[in-house]
Amino acid sequence: MEILCEGCECEKIEQMIRHTFWSSGRKRIVIGISGGIDSALAGVLSSKAIGGENVYGYFLPSDVTPEKDKEDVEDLCNKFGINLAIVPISSILRSFETISGYTETKYLKGNLMVRIRMTLLYYYANLNDGLVCGTSNKTEYILGYCTKHGDEAADIQPLLHLYKTDVRRLAKEAGVPETILNKEPSAGLYTGQTDEDEIGFSYEEIDAALRSLEENGWRAAGKTEEDILEKVKNTAHKRNGPPNLLKF
Amino acid sequence: MEILCEGCECEKIEQMIRHTFWSSGRKRIVIGISGGIDSALAGVLSSKAIGGENVYGYFLPSDVTPEKDKEDVEDLCNKFGINLAIVPISSILRSFETISGYTETKYLKGNLMVRIRMTLLYYYANLNDGLVCGTSNKTEYILGYCTKHGDEAADIQPLLHLYKTDVRRLAKEAGVPETILNKEPSAGLYTGQTDEDEIGFSYEEIDAALRSLEENGWRAAGKTEEDILEKVKNTAHKRNGPPNLLKF
Repeated sequence: MEILCEGCECEKIEQMIRHTFWSSGRKRIVIGISGGIDSALAGVLSSKAIGGENVYGYFLPSDVTPEKDKEDVEDLCNKFGINLAIVPISSILRSFETISGYTETKYLKGNLMVRIRMTLLYYYANLNDGLVCGTSNKTEYILGYCTKHGDEAADIQPLLHLYKTDVRRLAKEAGVPETILNKEPSAGLYTGQTDEDEIGFSYEEIDAALRSLEENGWRAAGKTEEDILEKVKNTAHKRNGPPNLLKF
Repeated sequence: MEILCEGCECEKIEQMIRHTFWSSGRKRIVIGISGGIDSALAGVLSSKAIGGENVYGYFLPSDVTPEKDKEDVEDLCNKFGINLAIVPISSILRSFETISGYTETKYLKGNLMVRIRMTLLYYYANLNDGLVCGTSNKTEYILGYCTKHGDEAADIQPLLHLYKTDVRRLAKEAGVPETILNKEPSAGLYTGQTDEDEIGFSYEEIDAALRSLEENGWRAAGKTEEDILEKVKNTAHKRNGPPNLLKF
């Protein structure tokens, strides 16, 4: 189902954030803000929900992070009164490179970077009595385009029901600056990486296929839907908990 | 319900490990082996399930890890034909100590250590086409005596239905060496740490309270059960997924 009324939807998400925050008894929301559209929207809605002064944003650049992202994050946080700290991850990443048997591939290094960022966000959340706000959307979640126990690991996931194309519309509505709205989506794990190149389809194509699959009981019609469904199937383990024998 | 027939129970767990391993299509099981009883049992059952040659054990000591643990892990892996690599985490931990605003408490540092270990296990799992085997038991899981997205983060949790006191009986049955069986339980995150001191009760007391609570619909009878129930309630967020608005 397409989400038509952006205003209402943003308000619904803000209420959910506020309710979860209050129930948790925590004092702050801690969020990684990358300069991309998802974390921008999650940060803005968090600041609207509980006040920017209670939101601690962390920009966690690596050696391959564009300088432009830093400026965009600073502008965003200024505009919405979000506290911002900048914590480069390069020296931590280098310490992992010294371990026995270390081998570097884009995939291995990318997963390390994502889990280092999660570890840092939880460190700062522990330090500041904060709730970690995740920034995952429905498209990447269902596709499994994420790092297990990395970017999906959070205490609240306010955008998880939004396809990427929904995120774009809501971000515009919520006042996310143009420069972030128009940026090419990227996980930023290596130079030149873009989501759409890696996945092999545009987000318009992916979301259309996912909506159609969802409406048709996950029966694929056509080649694109078959390819997308294959990705969904192969990543089920990322969405399910670890198999176990507990009945609780 | 108490698990009475250890032999059958071990076999049931081995079957579950074998089935999950086969379904995953992975080539190895990767497991952190600490010298404690939980990871010893999970390692032994993994080796019985898929052959020790396919199990990659990792001992990940810090500056506070006793030398005795290393010897115990080496003996265990020798006895059950498990591959063993030793990867100290001290230099990685020190790199985190250089971040902006770093503050050290036992709690903050302990959580960092656990998440560094998870990140390393997933690194080696990615590298070796492995499935990460968790070593969490039912007692610590229900009490929430664990680090969120740390020691609970795994691809399979074969001991999750076993109370700590069940783990002890099954470990003996499975042939885990005496020196590990008799060791005082500790997360090993700082010198002198023991589980029972931190939790404030012995595992016999905790498990008796948890069994009774479970049988009586989580209504507490007496002070110990009330205290234990309080811990269960306060850590619900560790067992539930992050709140979100997704219906999938």
